[in-house]
Amino acid sequence: MQELLEADPRLTPVADAIAASLLRVQRVFDEQLASDLPPVMQLVRHVERYRGKMLRPTLVIVSGLAAHPRIVGETDLVSLVSDPHVAVAAVCEMVHMATLVHDDVLDEADTRRRGQTVNRLHGNETAVILGDYLIASAYHLCSRLGTPQSALAIGRASAVMCAGELLQLHHRDDGSLDEATYYEIVDRKTAELISTAAALGARLSGADESVCEALAEYGRCVGIAFQIQDDLLDLTGDERTVGKSVGKDLEKGKLTLPLIRFLATAEPAQRGKVLPLLERAGDEKAPSQEAASQIAAMLARSDAVAYAREAARQHVDRAVRAVSVLPDSPPRAMLIAMANAVISRSF
Amino acid sequence: MQELLEADPRLTPVADAIAASLLRVQRVFDEQLASDLPPVMQLVRHVERYRGKMLRPTLVIVSGLAAHPRIVGETDLVSLVSDPHVAVAAVCEMVHMATLVHDDVLDEADTRRRGQTVNRLHGNETAVILGDYLIASAYHLCSRLGTPQSALAIGRASAVMCAGELLQLHHRDDGSLDEATYYEIVDRKTAELISTAAALGARLSGADESVCEALAEYGRCVGIAFQIQDDLLDLTGDERTVGKSVGKDLEKGKLTLPLIRFLATAEPAQRGKVLPLLERAGDEKAPSQEAASQIAAMLARSDAVAYAREAARQHVDRAVRAVSVLPDSPPRAMLIAMANAVISRSF
Repeated sequence: MQELLEADPRLTPVADAIAASLLRVQRVFDEQLASDLPPVMQLVRHVERYRGKMLRPTLVIVSGLAAHPRIVGETDLVSLVSDPHVAVAAVCEMVHMATLVHDDVLDEADTRRRGQTVNRLHGNETAVILGDYLIASAYHLCSRLGTPQSALAIGRASAVMCAGELLQLHHRDDGSLDEATYYEIVDRKTAELISTAAALGARLSGADESVCEALAEYGRCVGIAFQIQDDLLDLTGDERTVGKSVGKDLEKGKLTLPLIRFLATAEPAQRGKVLPLLERAGDEKAPSQEAASQIAAMLARSDAVAYAREAARQHVDRAVRAVSVLPDSPPRAMLIAMANAVISRSF
Repeated sequence: MQELLEADPRLTPVADAIAASLLRVQRVFDEQLASDLPPVMQLVRHVERYRGKMLRPTLVIVSGLAAHPRIVGETDLVSLVSDPHVAVAAVCEMVHMATLVHDDVLDEADTRRRGQTVNRLHGNETAVILGDYLIASAYHLCSRLGTPQSALAIGRASAVMCAGELLQLHHRDDGSLDEATYYEIVDRKTAELISTAAALGARLSGADESVCEALAEYGRCVGIAFQIQDDLLDLTGDERTVGKSVGKDLEKGKLTLPLIRFLATAEPAQRGKVLPLLERAGDEKAPSQEAASQIAAMLARSDAVAYAREAARQHVDRAVRAVSVLPDSPPRAMLIAMANAVISRSF
């Protein structure tokens, strides 16, 4: 956030409104998850430490501001952020956090945000049910909003996310996965919730349908760029900077965009080297970390990384174009800055 | 069902109305889970085979009939079952099925309804996400109902269920678990959703608040009796009749009512024999099936099984008393027959 602010002083009041709103989001988040059972509270406190970038709640807020019919010339930004905005922002973070907790079980990950994962500390069983608790609490909060519109959107988005994840699992270790299927997976698994967050922010501000759709498109493109950047960080990132285990995608047989590009364009001889390495990387008994490093080294010598960076860049450009229908305002400038930040991040 | 009908011919038209309504429930269930992705459809078709007793949807329907202000003298029972009744019945079954899919992961179970489990066929990852897909689809269906009342109740019940399951995991292998904590776990983990199903059935029929509360109490007591019967079947049941793995509770360190009773009343010498066996039963490397059989044999010689049967009986009696506030009608007779059937079942 600091770098964004230095680049454009118009963003400072937006950043202040985000910070104030996220405090409200955290309060609602904590209240909704509170339990009278001490063992449940202990787990909730642990998972609250997972809160990181807060991308989805931030998008609900900034999208709600940028799409607000009264935004032009408005100086009291905080007054435009309603309680339903705050509740939906908390709901999006809860749903996202549930997927993190379940993903850590699936990935057998040991670290998350520089701390130990729930599965590592309390076992897979507890992590699965804690994820369910987060999802159930998210829906409960959503259905308290009075109108069914948000609950409907969140329910639909969650089902789409799961279908995307199931499609990804179906294609695990599938060395012939093409880009079209990759984008189908990413669109559902990652982009759907981010798109829904942005669209709901606008909807709760009473924006016109065309504006809500523009923000849905913005969120979808940001989400896809975000996932490609995640793919790149898993390949080229530094564990200490990223804050979670790297190289996991290769080990789990998840085909990422750089790898798909590499396999689609490599000479048969190179392909012939990588495919057996991929199998070894996914083999729990073999020294998979070493195979993963070898693949990473081969990809580094190809155009695969540059190609994926360019694809992410193009999605950011589409996101920026999508919000050009909105009137110029500091929150719109923030949406554009956030889209650009997604692919410059190193964490 | 056949035995119930032979005992009381008044129940026949109710059974017909249930059968007709459950067909509608299954249609809504299948429509809601349908996906454009073939791998997802394949999983959905597999999980549809899990449908067994349909206790929760049946309770929504029968409770809706028994609590209906127009029930006395009504002969066209089917006309009292509304689309929201059918949708909520499908929602309850989806939420329940999600817990079955996740429980099978936690229990490392291989069989369910005489077929292989999702985790066995497709791995734990797919089973976790498929469970999430069922939950998300349930909420999506619920939020399409127009009024937030059902979504609110289902969201709250789901969070309570998860909290109960987390409490149970926290007390795993806890040889000092007392009855009060046992009932706290069962009340949340099992009884909450059954109670919510019965209460929502009445609510959607426009019943008075006192009637809805009576049906919530009925469902809660039936749910507790149901769980105690499950405990007994895990100990004394026959795998082929029960349709799923037995002895799993002991192996997973879940303390059931018969075992809690045994540990609370056994001579120190007997206690001293069972506690190490319990540890061995929970040890994946040891021949746990044998330790489980030894425990089952010791319990069979004690009063523990009779004690648990009596506790289940008392909860059935409370359930029957709860519905005595309703006017006499064939659906009310069915509620009473269903409560009694919970503890006479061998599956």
